[in-house]
Parts: sequence; structure tokens; C-alpha cells
Amino acid sequence: MKLPPGVSASDFAAALEKFAAVVGKEWVFSSQDDVDLYRDSYSPLWHEEDERVPSAAVAPDGVEQIQAIVKIANTYKIPLWTISTGKNLAYGGSSPALSGSVILDLKRMNRILEVNDKNHYALVEPGVSYFDLYHYIQDHKLNVWIDPPDPGWGSPMGNSLERGGGRTPMRDHFASVCGMEIVLANGEVIRTGMGALPESKTWQQYKYGFGPYVDGMFSQSNFGIVTKIGIWLMPSPEAYRDGVVSVPKHDDLIPFVDTLSFLIDSSVVRGTMLLDSPLLSYRASQGGSVLDMPGGPTVAETEKLGQEKGLPYWSMELHFWGPPNVIDAQWEYAKEKFSAIPGATFKDGRYYHFPMEVKDTDAVPWVALGIPSLSVFGLIAGGNGHMDFSPIIPMQAEAVFEVLSAFGKAYADLGIEPKNQFFSLPWCFFPHSFVLLFGFPIAHDVEKNRESRRAFQRLVEVAAEHGWGEYRTHVAFMDAVSNVYSFNNHALRRLHERVKDAIDPNGILSPGKSGIWPKRLRQQRA
Amino acid sequence: MKLPPGVSASDFAAALEKFAAVVGKEWVFSSQDDVDLYRDSYSPLWHEEDERVPSAAVAPDGVEQIQAIVKIANTYKIPLWTISTGKNLAYGGSSPALSGSVILDLKRMNRILEVNDKNHYALVEPGVSYFDLYHYIQDHKLNVWIDPPDPGWGSPMGNSLERGGGRTPMRDHFASVCGMEIVLANGEVIRTGMGALPESKTWQQYKYGFGPYVDGMFSQSNFGIVTKIGIWLMPSPEAYRDGVVSVPKHDDLIPFVDTLSFLIDSSVVRGTMLLDSPLLSYRASQGGSVLDMPGGPTVAETEKLGQEKGLPYWSMELHFWGPPNVIDAQWEYAKEKFSAIPGATFKDGRYYHFPMEVKDTDAVPWVALGIPSLSVFGLIAGGNGHMDFSPIIPMQAEAVFEVLSAFGKAYADLGIEPKNQFFSLPWCFFPHSFVLLFGFPIAHDVEKNRESRRAFQRLVEVAAEHGWGEYRTHVAFMDAVSNVYSFNNHALRRLHERVKDAIDPNGILSPGKSGIWPKRLRQQRA
Repeated sequence: MKLPPGVSASDFAAALEKFAAVVGKEWVFSSQDDVDLYRDSYSPLWHEEDERVPSAAVAPDGVEQIQAIVKIANTYKIPLWTISTGKNLAYGGSSPALSGSVILDLKRMNRILEVNDKNHYALVEPGVSYFDLYHYIQDHKLNVWIDPPDPGWGSPMGNSLERGGGRTPMRDHFASVCGMEIVLANGEVIRTGMGALPESKTWQQYKYGFGPYVDGMFSQSNFGIVTKIGIWLMPSPEAYRDGVVSVPKHDDLIPFVDTLSFLIDSSVVRGTMLLDSPLLSYRASQGGSVLDMPGGPTVAETEKLGQEKGLPYWSMELHFWGPPNVIDAQWEYAKEKFSAIPGATFKDGRYYHFPMEVKDTDAVPWVALGIPSLSVFGLIAGGNGHMDFSPIIPMQAEAVFEVLSAFGKAYADLGIEPKNQFFSLPWCFFPHSFVLLFGFPIAHDVEKNRESRRAFQRLVEVAAEHGWGEYRTHVAFMDAVSNVYSFNNHALRRLHERVKDAIDPNGILSPGKSGIWPKRLRQQRA
Repeated sequence: MKLPPGVSASDFAAALEKFAAVVGKEWVFSSQDDVDLYRDSYSPLWHEEDERVPSAAVAPDGVEQIQAIVKIANTYKIPLWTISTGKNLAYGGSSPALSGSVILDLKRMNRILEVNDKNHYALVEPGVSYFDLYHYIQDHKLNVWIDPPDPGWGSPMGNSLERGGGRTPMRDHFASVCGMEIVLANGEVIRTGMGALPESKTWQQYKYGFGPYVDGMFSQSNFGIVTKIGIWLMPSPEAYRDGVVSVPKHDDLIPFVDTLSFLIDSSVVRGTMLLDSPLLSYRASQGGSVLDMPGGPTVAETEKLGQEKGLPYWSMELHFWGPPNVIDAQWEYAKEKFSAIPGATFKDGRYYHFPMEVKDTDAVPWVALGIPSLSVFGLIAGGNGHMDFSPIIPMQAEAVFEVLSAFGKAYADLGIEPKNQFFSLPWCFFPHSFVLLFGFPIAHDVEKNRESRRAFQRLVEVAAEHGWGEYRTHVAFMDAVSNVYSFNNHALRRLHERVKDAIDPNGILSPGKSGIWPKRLRQQRA
């Protein structure tokens, strides 16, 4: 067992005993078998000295128990790494940034406190999963949709606090957060937004409250333990339809992205889209790469291949939710605008009316219909999981071209062959920008993982050289990513750490999260 | 002249001299005539001892000058009250919460640093007004709209930081903020979001950055001096149309608000709406009240009056922006949904296609068309201005009914006659909630203002008893409003103040803003 840094075995044992007095013996986990369950099943440090492993876990069942636990943790200087459902896979799962942390596992706090289908929101505890919330809504025949991320077993709270994304118009999960309850490091409970008003009637209806609006401080953060969260939902729409737009040539991406940006920001096109390239995918399938590898085919050669094979250079599936007449008009308008690109083609796709019975075996776009699913795991070919590299880039064609050549060159420099590349074209998970998702493979092989980590570290640096930064990262790379957000000698991180030291002077809450270290553990920074 | 508390006349003089050395003598204002210009022209404390008056003003022209000023202010413990254009009328104008503060007037920093009409954002300094930004966009023929608040002379930065609202689909101004540059109390400059990455390419395109997202901390706040702000804009739409929905009976408001909430949260209806009651307005014009005054006419009597006069109980103008076929389908769908209410009637309104020439004399809904205007001042009948009481209430008919009776009773208790009432029905400035705007009249009459303040204070308390809190308030009432946000013995305010003390230990930045007092001035709290 790895003890927390600076904590003696006897103090650690005393703390666990006190935790047990609070939550009951059965909810403190310290045997190796139990603790192993909290290791990251996708760890890029699998079985290495530096793997981020917890020392124990404690699972409280309420705010008062959490308050008691943080008091004990302050006494013994025990770092607590908070998880909700612990499914943050590809970014660390349930494992801590600092080895020896005790996992504060909030899975038992899984109450759905309210779902309102007149004002369209839910108030939930940390341990509620997207599946739980979906089934609750179905069972109560409520007129709202949730917005699950691709794997639906995680929690709305955890995903929103990590600022994850879904597929429906409510895709930007942190943007839908309205009101939190938080236990601070000193054990005090705050409620944010209108929740700061006792007996408030609008806690889940108005975000900002009065004075500084602090919710964002508690996202990707180690400033507090969020115990309740309000989340805005979408009223069940009458219909969904989708359709594909394709354009033939490389430079068509310039007007294509301009048109896309116009349509998104005009709210004509909503939800999450993925830029696709049937042509580059074909090139990759023939032993080439989606990226522009040095010495690889030129744009002209690739366009010629496209003509021969009848493959468009770029395409995208657009999705529409709402009243049939409205979404039909939106799709028609989108086609009209994209038609300004010579050679643009369009293909009508699926069309569903709701309510609709969906069977487990139906080939529907589950997540875009607000239905949580685990089918994404079927897409990941073999291996032992992946960790995600996910930089934000401008929503501009020129940025996409720059990405293809910059990462092509970086992969070549790193000696990564086309068949081992793990690049996706940009997603539109968030307004106004693109995000890339590179799924780095994880192996049960120390040498291979070392290579992966070296590549990951290099891509973080290459991205930063181009002015691109990650929106989220694996616990093992939080320092590395934080290190490139260095404007004015890390002025923002120093502000974060000044706040951290003021409100968590013993540094007990999730040390190392997002590269923020409390004073007493700051030398742990990589 | 009122000196800052605890600052000697000689220290004050020395500080002003040092300020002058930084910004030039002509940009330090300390004569009574000059300083009077920073008094609140709508002060509810006009010519009383407790009027919030500054001691002097200093107007820097750049970040480096601000850095030098805060260093001097730290040395001499001079409170600096930051304003951008200083047009926060009804909420204090350019006057401070703490008398004797030096106004840090950022009007000279009025550069429009970027307007991007491909990704639809602007990057501006504090002194840029909505008029400036509008004219810049017109002059450069850019394909974007701004979203001005009703009076357009204020600044996009100031209004967004105060979390104000406009009329177009971009109405929620803080929600459109993307990236800030901030000078902290110690003189350090931070950039938030992606701005923390040097040479970032997405500072105005992705809000959250990496780690805790702090932008909200700097809204309605005294934690820093914002020197640059990114604001998302709307692409110029092809068309605008509006139309009015009316329903005849009191209880029709229940399905009316449910339908409205469904349409807003489905993005079918966008922008800002005002609930109207032609019937209650008529009742008020006949010597009655919009509110339900104790002993006043019953619902049945009022409905009978409506039948006689042919006046609907409730109505609302809905607005649509976008491609003609889309907004036509949206209006048709809205009519279809509201038609479920027996007796609902509909009236088509204005219809504009863009680009459109608008002359100063045209009777168009300026603000809803993204055109800044001062015409709202024509609507305020006489007097010496007003201060606004603006509680958030649930977007539910039952809450509107409760408001009408609770404030009717409060007005009766306060002895405020119907003709002196200053109540509006709810606005939809923000998603998921209503906001009320009561314009309390200000007089150049100490006794009348005292009465207004007594009423204001009482309404704050009545609202809080019902679970409603203000979204923003006048500098003279910041403590009073902050006092009702008291959950768990003011736990949120104590968190604010712990952060304040950590990052501004000398308490130099806007003491008293939003009820947040630095340690050394905490006894100033009302």
C-alpha cells in the first residue's frame, strides 16, 4: 500500500478508523483487492512505479458524513481524491493525481432529488448515473431529454464538472449547470447561485445569483466537494432528422467551415457534429494517413484519388431536433447555404418522430436521441483502453490544414507509422471552436506505454507551439498540460493556487487536480 | 471632499501626485466640480450624508498604467472603484459603494481590438460603448449583430460583467463572455480561459480553458480589474418577425407560461420577452393597480371587465430572428402550441429583411434589431431618474400570481398608492426564469427618497421571504441584498471574502461591491 506523502502508518490507520466511525466499517476500503478496484484500468503507467494509485477509499452517504470526513482529513493531512461514479476513463478513471490519496467515493449518494419537466431541469447527487437519470425520466413519463456523453455509465455531475460534451443541443455540459451545493475543505456547506438565498425558489432556474458567480471555480477543480448539482434539460422534441453534406475538394473546407460556423451561431444547426473525410479515411485504409505526413501524397494527388474513387474530400452529418416544419426548414436552409460551394452534394438521412419505441437492437444514433448507451466501447478495437489527447483548435479551415500538417510532422518525427495513428478530424462539441480527440492506445506493456507517453508529451508541446491547448487531460498529464498554460509566468495557475491555499490550507482536497498543488505538496509538481 | 476611510490628507495628496506621475496631471481629477461628475445622477441618497461620493478619479490609458496605479493604491491603502463607461444608471451610475473611493475610470481604454465575423466575436477594452462597437461594425461592413441593453451608451464589458441583458437571442450577456484579461490587486496580469496559453489561437473561441474556470468570479465582483473582454456576437440574420399571443382569462397564464417555457427551452422562441396584461394595465389606468391590492377587485370582477372592454388578461410579443422559412415555421408552431388554450388569439406583427436601411426616425424595435439607442429614456416619465429593484422569480404562472398578491400587500402596508406604483410584469431576460423590474423613482427631495429607500428595503425582505432574490442592485443596497443571500450563515459571502482577503489583502479594489468587504473595511458593512 502506498501511504499519502508525509503521513505515518499509525496516523493513516487512525484516520481510517475515524472514517469508519463516520461511515461504517463496510464503507472504508483498504485491502489491496478493494483498493485495486480504484486503479485506472486505462492507466498509461500500468504497473510502473509512477502509476497513480490510491491508499484507500471511503464512501460516505451524505453531506454530514463528508463534513466529518474532511475534518478528519484536515487533522491527519490526508489527501482526498473525490470521484462521483469514477468512470472518467481515458482521463484517469477513478485514480488520483497523487499516489497515496484516499478516494472519496460518492457513489452511494445517488439520489435524484428533482426532475422538473415544466422548467426543464434536474437536481442530482454525485452518484447518479446517466442511466439512472434516463430510467427515472422514463419511469415517471417526464417530458425531458438528458444529454449523455458517449459512454452513459458516468454521472451527470462528474461529466459536467469535467466540462464534458454530449451530442444533443445541450452538448456543452458545463453550460447547462445551474446551482451547486459544495462542501468546502473546512467542512462548511455553501450553495451557489440562487441557492445562497434560504428557501430559494429559483436555485435551478437562474445560474448567477448575486455577486461573484463561482460555479466555474468548482469545475476541473480541487476547491470543494460538490454534493448536489442542477442541470438544465431539453424538452422532448417532436422530431429528429439528419443529413449529410459533402464537398469534393481540399480548399472547399474554407467556405464549408465558414458556412458551418454561420449556421451554428445562427442556431440553425445544433448539437454535436464531426468533420469527416471519406477521402482521407480511404487514403489511410490503403496504408496512408489521414494526416499530411512529410513525403506523403500532395493535395492534388489526393484530389485525383478522390475523383477516381468518387470520394468527397470533406463531409459532415448535420442533426436537427424540433418541430418537423422547423427542422425541415433548417435543413433546407443549410443545403441552400452549402450549395454555394461548387460540387456540394446532400443526402437525406434518418427521420424520427417522438415518442418512439427504441429496442436495444435498433441501429439508431442513441446518444443523439438522448439515450445513454455503452455501445461506444464496441468501436474501440482491442487493446487495453486509451487515453485521450484533446486540444481545442479554431473553427477555421486553415486551422484544420495546420493541424494535419503539424501533427503529421510530429508523428513522423516520433516515428509513429500510419497504421498506429490515432487521430480524429475535428468535433464540434462546444460553440465557436473545434476539438480534436486523439485516442492514445494503452497497453499492458511498459515499453509501449512509455512510447505512448513520450508521444503524448510531445503532442502537448507541439499543440502549444501552435497556440492550441487541451480542454481536459489524464491525471498523469495534468502537470504537463497545466505547464503550457503559462501566460505571464503562470499567472492564472498562481491565482488558482493562492485561492487553493486560502480555502484549503492543509491541501486535503484532490492535490494535483488540473495541475493545482496546495502549498505543502507543491514540490510534487512534475 | 470625502477622504477614503483611514487615509490621511497628506497620504491622499501624495497618492494623487503619484497617480499623476503615471497617467499625467490632466487625467487625475480632484476638484469638486470634476469629482461631482462621478456622483450618481440617480442617487437615492441625493444630498444626504450617506450619499456614495468619490474622493477623486484617475483615468489610465493602458494596462501598465493600471498596474502602476494599483501598486500606489496598495502603498497608501486607497480604495479604487473601477468603472468602464460609468453608465450603470439605476444601479449607482459611476458612484462607489464606499464613499471616499477613488474612481478608476477606464473610459480612455476604448480600443476595439478585434471583431471577427467568421467566428462571431469581439475583443474590446472597458471604455468601448455599444455605440462604438455598432459603428465599427457598420463602418467595416461586418456580418455580425451586437446585443445592446436598452440604453446603448454603456459598455459591452461593463454590462456583461454586471450580468445585464439585451433583447436579441444573445440577451444573456455574461453567457456570451469568452476570455478576459484582468489586472489583479497585486498588479499582476492574468488571462483567463484559453488566454492562459501564450499566443493562444482560441482565446475568444473557447471559454473554459484548463482547470478551474474563473471568469464568473470577476462578474459583479471586486476581485480584479478587467482590461479586455471577449464577447460572442450573433451572425446578422436574414430576417426578423414578431407577433402577439393573447389569452383571455386569469388562469390561462398557467398553460401560457408552460407553453412559453417549452418553446424557449426548445429554442423555437428566442430573445427577450415581456409578459403584458392589457387588462391589468387598463385597470391601473382607471385608478386601480396592476398588483392585487388588498380589497381590490377579484379575479372574477377583473375578468368581467376584460369581457366588457374586449381586453385579454395576458399577452406577449414573441420575436424571431433567422431565415424566413425557419422563423415562419417557428411562429406557426408557437401559434399551434398556444392554440391549445381556449380563446387564444394571435396577431402578426412586423417583418423585416436584412440588410435594411434604418433611419433615426423609424419606429422600429431598435434594440431587438441589435441597434443601440437612447430612446428608452423617452419612456421614463419626468422625475430625477429611478433605481431598479429586480428580483428573479420562477418561470411559472403560480409565481406570477404570488408576486401580484405579495407585492400588492407589501405596497398596501407601505401605503404606496396605485398611482405611485412602479411595477412591471415579468421579463424573460434569462433562460429558465423571469425577472421583475421595479423602477423606483428618485427625487431631489430627501424625504421622498427616504420613503423610496424604506420601500426598497422592505421589498428586498418581502422577496426573500418568498424565496426570490435580486439579480443586481444599486450600490446603496448592495449590503441589503447581500444580507438576504444568507444560506448557512452567509457561507457563500464568507467564501467570497476569504478569496478577497487572499488576493487583495489591502482591500484596495472596489470595497463593498456586491456586499463583499475586505478585512480592513469589513466594519463598513451596513
